[in-house]
Amino acid sequence: MTHDLTITEVRLTPILVADPPLLNTQGVHQPYTPRLIIEVVTADGVTGVGETYGDTKYIDLADPLADALPGCRIDDVNGLHRLADLVCADSPEATGADAVDAGGLRGVQTAGKLRLSVVSGFEVALLDALGKTLGLPVHALLGGKVRDAVDYSAYLFYRWAEHPGGAGESDDWGAALDPAGIVTQARRFAREYGFGSFKLKGGVFDPDEEIAAVRALAEAFPGQPLRLDPNGAWSVETSLRVAAELGDVLEYLEDPAATTDRMARVAAGTGVPLATNMCVTTFAEIPEAFSRGAVQVVLSDHHYWGGLRNTRELAAICRTFGVGLSMHSNTHLGISLAAMTHVAAVVPNLDYACDSHYPWQSEDVVTERLEFKDGRLAVSDLPGLGVELDQDRLARLHRRWTDDDGTMRDRDDAAAMRVARPDWSAPAVPRW
Amino acid sequence: MTHDLTITEVRLTPILVADPPLLNTQGVHQPYTPRLIIEVVTADGVTGVGETYGDTKYIDLADPLADALPGCRIDDVNGLHRLADLVCADSPEATGADAVDAGGLRGVQTAGKLRLSVVSGFEVALLDALGKTLGLPVHALLGGKVRDAVDYSAYLFYRWAEHPGGAGESDDWGAALDPAGIVTQARRFAREYGFGSFKLKGGVFDPDEEIAAVRALAEAFPGQPLRLDPNGAWSVETSLRVAAELGDVLEYLEDPAATTDRMARVAAGTGVPLATNMCVTTFAEIPEAFSRGAVQVVLSDHHYWGGLRNTRELAAICRTFGVGLSMHSNTHLGISLAAMTHVAAVVPNLDYACDSHYPWQSEDVVTERLEFKDGRLAVSDLPGLGVELDQDRLARLHRRWTDDDGTMRDRDDAAAMRVARPDWSAPAVPRW
Repeated sequence: MTHDLTITEVRLTPILVADPPLLNTQGVHQPYTPRLIIEVVTADGVTGVGETYGDTKYIDLADPLADALPGCRIDDVNGLHRLADLVCADSPEATGADAVDAGGLRGVQTAGKLRLSVVSGFEVALLDALGKTLGLPVHALLGGKVRDAVDYSAYLFYRWAEHPGGAGESDDWGAALDPAGIVTQARRFAREYGFGSFKLKGGVFDPDEEIAAVRALAEAFPGQPLRLDPNGAWSVETSLRVAAELGDVLEYLEDPAATTDRMARVAAGTGVPLATNMCVTTFAEIPEAFSRGAVQVVLSDHHYWGGLRNTRELAAICRTFGVGLSMHSNTHLGISLAAMTHVAAVVPNLDYACDSHYPWQSEDVVTERLEFKDGRLAVSDLPGLGVELDQDRLARLHRRWTDDDGTMRDRDDAAAMRVARPDWSAPAVPRW
Repeated sequence: MTHDLTITEVRLTPILVADPPLLNTQGVHQPYTPRLIIEVVTADGVTGVGETYGDTKYIDLADPLADALPGCRIDDVNGLHRLADLVCADSPEATGADAVDAGGLRGVQTAGKLRLSVVSGFEVALLDALGKTLGLPVHALLGGKVRDAVDYSAYLFYRWAEHPGGAGESDDWGAALDPAGIVTQARRFAREYGFGSFKLKGGVFDPDEEIAAVRALAEAFPGQPLRLDPNGAWSVETSLRVAAELGDVLEYLEDPAATTDRMARVAAGTGVPLATNMCVTTFAEIPEAFSRGAVQVVLSDHHYWGGLRNTRELAAICRTFGVGLSMHSNTHLGISLAAMTHVAAVVPNLDYACDSHYPWQSEDVVTERLEFKDGRLAVSDLPGLGVELDQDRLARLHRRWTDDDGTMRDRDDAAAMRVARPDWSAPAVPRW
């Protein structure tokens, strides 16, 4: 009954994970994308795992936190946040408040946002270790699941068949560059995973082409929820035009325009709910956005918001102010998918199916991949997250990171696009 | 390591606790006040304790919840809330949305508010049992303490020396019915408990008399934080006049006027922060109050808000919207004081010393009374709440409840006042 919850060791392992040539408004996914795997070991010999962004600027913040953490306790999530405030020096790359992260597509980037994303990976590792120690699933540490399975949505991308020059790992998905290609992709997602709702990553082609793709989806999947996300690429006028043309089939329109002000102006002119993971990504951004009615759905992401406990608090704020809640995804592996599923399981007001890139990831660091069934993931009742780290797989993906000459260690979708189109630069917004 | 967290038994014990003749705008405290003690027993034989209001209308909601709870798990706080929604039939006394609780002084009373207050007592019992089972203090279950001790404020009352006719238990505090009496009371609070801030329960006498009392406190304790709380008894105009006269010495003015609308009008006319435990007592009341700037400090109370987890979420909302946070108290015993202290310990933005009636309670149901030192309570690191139920004391106070002819079982400060002043009725607000 008495456990020693003291942290004795923290291991950080940066890795590079295969990623298909998925297109977005900034460019294209690199052949490999960086992630950081965090292992926290306790005096009892229990190891908890977490996962977060793996770019250099995140590792630079994770290193001092990993050094400082031994001696702290795995049940002290508040202490983790205070420690991070103390030891995570602001990343030089992130000090410009107006800087835009070309790769992350996560809105304005600040030092505080980077720090919270790093803390989040550690928090998940602490909760995993605590759950394993106490014999409780992570959802129980968060107040208990309110559902036994979590709905996920198909995440459709315009994509090439291969990376330029055949770089990276190949897959059998083929190209998807027009409405027919998107519908084909969606049918495979529906067939293989059972997803019942579909999100298209837009901002890649002229809005009329993307409207046509969504129309094609609506015909192929009548009555099923559809979403379109151009990552803020559109003007207010274009956003309103798309909303008017697709209002009858869209569950929500995600980040049509890039700022709270533009989103508020779009919202004022349409009845289509606007979702965001760009203009509301921190607690500080909530009051203005909510008071102006700029967003009707916040796409939570425990990486952004500083962990699973903070995500619960975000959910409480959304519930209180009558704002919907759904879940955003960036490229991630099974550890984060398990974490997403646990927190999604405890939030009563998770109003929509969650996004996940997971089906696009052919590689993982867990021993058993998580499996979508009927578009859902069962909530694990095993102690902790319910996943196990595969040290061989981890070592292999870490070797890829070690061997990399530096071109892949910092995700840059615009740079990846320049391999195919040397004149490319990340477009200014609004692009259309 | 493997525990059986299943609830096997729930015991509800209504009690009557001695309460001094403390005056407020509704009347006077009864000689005895009802509380409900909740014990939750698990399959492992662990017992968790909780405490909440004990009036009949609360017991009527607690009974079906206690009956339904066996078979549920102590780590499933979300499940407790859902179960309460299912089984707690709306109390007939509470269905009038406009009904005002004459005794509780907690603003508009609704069925939902009563239910949350009942759930809160159960939630504390679940967390106490879970902490005891896992060997963790309740604060660790809530994310970890951010402070080792919690500041409390002296809670000053106008009072009589004795209840009418010498009813109830006597004490040696004597009467306090003017500025000198309040200062004498405050000096004793400072001497015996070390409190460094002082709150006067007002709304009892003409505002000018209460202004004089606060002025006398300011002279006796120069520079120390002072608060005045007339429980909504004043008009907007009177509130503004008092704020203007006491603005230089008040830390905050608590519920000067009775509704969100009136509070907003007061806030618009003064720089003195307005605190409330009357117009913002549920999540549903937050958006209007915050958007209108009606309150600058929310007085959290885990009994009102549905438990310790909900209180954390309230704190997150206040933090996000730049609204201060302090803590309200109604008459309570050591179990609730321990619960208040655990949640106060985990909330980073607890900006003010907490209120507590505890020094006025000469009786308790715990084996060892909690002791204020230098105006603070140390945060317990013992498993669970860190308090132990004294079954003999519990039985004695329960016998008082059993023996009561019904006059004390439902707190009614106006009825208690009529014993001394037969023509008394709870005054309409604004009273001044």
